[in-house]
Amino acid sequence: MSVKDGIESIHDGMTFSRRKRFVKKVKDNQIDRLYEEISNGSRLHLSKAITLLESTSDADKAAGQQLLQKLLPKTGNSIRIGITGVPGAGKSTFIEAFGLKLAEAGHKVAVLAIDPSSTITGGSILGDKTRMEVLARHPNAFIRPSPSSGTLGGVHKKTRETMLLCEAAGFDILLIETVGVGQSETVVRGMVDMFLLLVLTGAGDELQGMKKGIMELADAIIVHKADGDNLKLAKKTVKEFKQLLHFLQPATIGWTSTVMPVSSLERTGLDTVWETILSFQRKMTESGVWEQRRRSQTTDWFHSMIRDRLIDSFFADQRKKEQVKTLEKQLNEGNVTVANAVEKLFNS
Amino acid sequence: MSVKDGIESIHDGMTFSRRKRFVKKVKDNQIDRLYEEISNGSRLHLSKAITLLESTSDADKAAGQQLLQKLLPKTGNSIRIGITGVPGAGKSTFIEAFGLKLAEAGHKVAVLAIDPSSTITGGSILGDKTRMEVLARHPNAFIRPSPSSGTLGGVHKKTRETMLLCEAAGFDILLIETVGVGQSETVVRGMVDMFLLLVLTGAGDELQGMKKGIMELADAIIVHKADGDNLKLAKKTVKEFKQLLHFLQPATIGWTSTVMPVSSLERTGLDTVWETILSFQRKMTESGVWEQRRRSQTTDWFHSMIRDRLIDSFFADQRKKEQVKTLEKQLNEGNVTVANAVEKLFNS
Repeated sequence: MSVKDGIESIHDGMTFSRRKRFVKKVKDNQIDRLYEEISNGSRLHLSKAITLLESTSDADKAAGQQLLQKLLPKTGNSIRIGITGVPGAGKSTFIEAFGLKLAEAGHKVAVLAIDPSSTITGGSILGDKTRMEVLARHPNAFIRPSPSSGTLGGVHKKTRETMLLCEAAGFDILLIETVGVGQSETVVRGMVDMFLLLVLTGAGDELQGMKKGIMELADAIIVHKADGDNLKLAKKTVKEFKQLLHFLQPATIGWTSTVMPVSSLERTGLDTVWETILSFQRKMTESGVWEQRRRSQTTDWFHSMIRDRLIDSFFADQRKKEQVKTLEKQLNEGNVTVANAVEKLFNS
Repeated sequence: MSVKDGIESIHDGMTFSRRKRFVKKVKDNQIDRLYEEISNGSRLHLSKAITLLESTSDADKAAGQQLLQKLLPKTGNSIRIGITGVPGAGKSTFIEAFGLKLAEAGHKVAVLAIDPSSTITGGSILGDKTRMEVLARHPNAFIRPSPSSGTLGGVHKKTRETMLLCEAAGFDILLIETVGVGQSETVVRGMVDMFLLLVLTGAGDELQGMKKGIMELADAIIVHKADGDNLKLAKKTVKEFKQLLHFLQPATIGWTSTVMPVSSLERTGLDTVWETILSFQRKMTESGVWEQRRRSQTTDWFHSMIRDRLIDSFFADQRKKEQVKTLEKQLNEGNVTVANAVEKLFNS
C-alpha cells in the first residue's frame, strides 16, 4: 500500500497548499489506522506497515517512520533469535517445525530473513513461501521474506525496523534467518539476543564450507537431521562440536555454548532447543547481559547509521567519487602516499 | 628531532613572511638530507624521520609526509611479516633469534610493534629494548617500539608509514609484532604479506586465552619453546593444531597454513620458518595473490582514512557530539527510533 498511489487521483485540481494539507491528513489518518490495527495484532496491517518502511518513496518512508515512532513504546517484548547454517542444513524445515511447536503452544512467532545475496540474484531465501506452508497458515505466525533490494546495510536497517513492528504487533518470538555465507551472520548477531547455528553430521566437511568465525557467534549449535540412520552419526557430531567449542571463547558473556541433536522430521530435540533458549534468557536477564546487549546494539546501530550517512553524502558528490578512483589508481601505481591522497581529496 | 625546535631560536626578530620562507628552506634542506641518508641506509636518520611522522606538530608531520612522498619509489621491496601470540609465548625471544639468523645471513631486518594497549598503560611491548639486546646491536637490524600514544587507527597509520620508511632504508625483512589480544591482529593482518602465530604446548589451554578467530589469520603456526622436556609435547601440539587447521578456511587463498615446532633457545626450526616464508612468497607471487593483497591493503587503508576523516570532522563539532550523547540516552530509554535520531542529528 502506497500513500502516494492512494491519493494521487484525488490530487488534480487542488491548490498546492490545500493538496499538502490533504496529503498530511490522509497520512495521519492512515498512520492512526495502522497504529490501531497493528496494536490489535493485525498481520495484514503489519505487512502494510513493513511495505511502507521498505518503500523507495520518501513520503511512504516518512509515514513508516512516524508510525514506528508511535509504536515504539510497544516494542522490545520478544526473544530475538538469529538462525544460520550452511545451505542444505535444513533451516526452513527447522524453522517450520520449531515455529509450529511454539505457535501451537500459544506463542506468536514472526519469521524474518536477512539475505544480502538476494540483492544480487534478485531472489530471497524466504521468497518461496511454500517452503514454510504449514507455519505460514497458522494464525499465530507471520512470515516475511527479506527486502528484495538495497545494500547489506539497508537490508539490515529494514529488518531491524521490521522486528520492532512485529513486536508492536504482539509477536513474542522473532526468528531471523540468514544464510551461513558472507557477512550476514555478523549483521544478524548484532540485532538478536541469541544466535543458533544449524549444522549437519560430519563436522569436518561441514565446517569447510562454513564462513570463518561463524561458530564463535553461536550460543547453541543444532546438529540437524538427527534421525533414522543418521542418528548415531549425529550424536558423534555433537561430541565433536563440543570439543571444538572448548577451543573458542563463548559468544555471550556468562553463557556456555551448547550442542544438541535435533530432528525436525521426527520432531525430536525441539523441546531441548526451547528449554535452552529459556535458560539463556533467564541467565542473561539475571546477569544484566540481556539488557546491556540490547542497549549496545541500539547504540551501534545508531553509530553505523551516522557513519553510513556521512560516507553516503561524501560519495554522493560525483566529483569526489571520480577523484577517489583517480587517487586509488595513483596509489596502486605507487605515485602518492595514502596521507597525501587523503589531503588531496579533502583540500580540493 | 623537531623542525620546530631546531629553528625556534633563530625566529626572533624576523618578519612573518621572511620567517615563513626561512622555515620552508630549513625544512626543504632537512628533507633532502633525510632523503639522502635514509636512501643510504642510515638507521639514525630513519629514526629521525619516523619521529617526524609520529610528531604531534603539524609542521613536523607535513615534513614527514613530504619526505615519505619523496621516498615512495624506493618502497615495497620487503617481505612484511606479522607476528602474534599469547603473552608468554616468547615473541621477543623468537624475533631476536629469528631476526639474528636473518641479519647474520646478510638480510636487513626491521622490527616494529603495534601495541594499542600501550595507549592505555603508557607502556609498549617493545619499550623495553633490552629484551632484544643482541639483535638491537646488530648493524643489519633496526628496532622501533610502538608509537606511545594515539588511537588504534592512529598507531596503525603510523606503523604503516614507518614500514614504508624502513623499506626505503633498504630493510628487506619487516617483522611487525603485536600482542595476541584485542583488535590489533586484524589491523596487522591488514598491513602484512604473511602472518605468523606463536603458541605454546597444550593447545587447548593456550587457545582459551587467545582472541577469537586469531588462528584463522595465521599462514603459519609456530609451536614455540619446543626444546628439552617440552619437545615431545610440542610435537603432539603440532599435530593437534594441524587437526584444528583442518576445520578452518585458509588465511591466504591458495596457501595451506602450516604448523611447526621451533626452539629459539636451541635455535632449531628457524630454518623451516624461513623456508616456509620463502615458499609462501614464491607461491603467492606466482599466483598474483601477493600483489593483489598489497593493492587491496593500500586501497582499504585509503578508504579507512577517508572514513576516519569524515567521522572525525563530524564529531569535532562539540554541539554534534553532545547531541549524539543526548540522542543515545533517548534511544536507550526507548523514546526515539534510530532513523528519527539520525534525522534529528543531520537536520538541526
